[in-house]
Amino acid sequence: MLIVVAYDISVKDQKGAKRLARVAKICSRYGQRVQNSVFECLIDQLTFVKLKTELTKVIVEKTDSLRFYNLGDHYKNKVTHIGTKEVLDLTDALIF
Amino acid sequence: MLIVVAYDISVKDQKGAKRLARVAKICSRYGQRVQNSVFECLIDQLTFVKLKTELTKVIVEKTDSLRFYNLGDHYKNKVTHIGTKEVLDLTDALIF
Repeated sequence: MLIVVAYDISVKDQKGAKRLARVAKICSRYGQRVQNSVFECLIDQLTFVKLKTELTKVIVEKTDSLRFYNLGDHYKNKVTHIGTKEVLDLTDALIF
Repeated sequence: MLIVVAYDISVKDQKGAKRLARVAKICSRYGQRVQNSVFECLIDQLTFVKLKTELTKVIVEKTDSLRFYNLGDHYKNKVTHIGTKEVLDLTDALIF
């Protein structure tokens, strides 16, 4: 299933900048960055729980925000992109 | 249906900062801001086309990115929020 992760990390202090980098690093292990603070992850339910748990341990809930959007297995016509950084479709056949 | 709008606007120059403000202003006429550059819009198909058209006229496709995620009509259990700025559910009954 496709999970979209969007995050806002308060970077008012240096700790915030570290949290921002750690959140991005964690997300990059699970999926593909599509915008500065938006990742798309093709993962199953169990992996989704692991991702949420890892991210929740890093953020400060009082100042930071995580939003997850579950687009399910049939997501291709649910995502529209306009502009720069078109995203590689990881499920497309690789032609050699 | 719930449409999530996520955008990355290049603010390398003053024009970019203006575009960023205009994109946010347009989105706020269609929905609710949930993060710095993420809005959630409860709109129908026709309005969605109008929103995309308006935003596409403002951005510079070479440097800016717009992503739309269509979560359909049954979206409540598809959205998970952790952290600050819990979002008002506009469809919930208002209790006076």
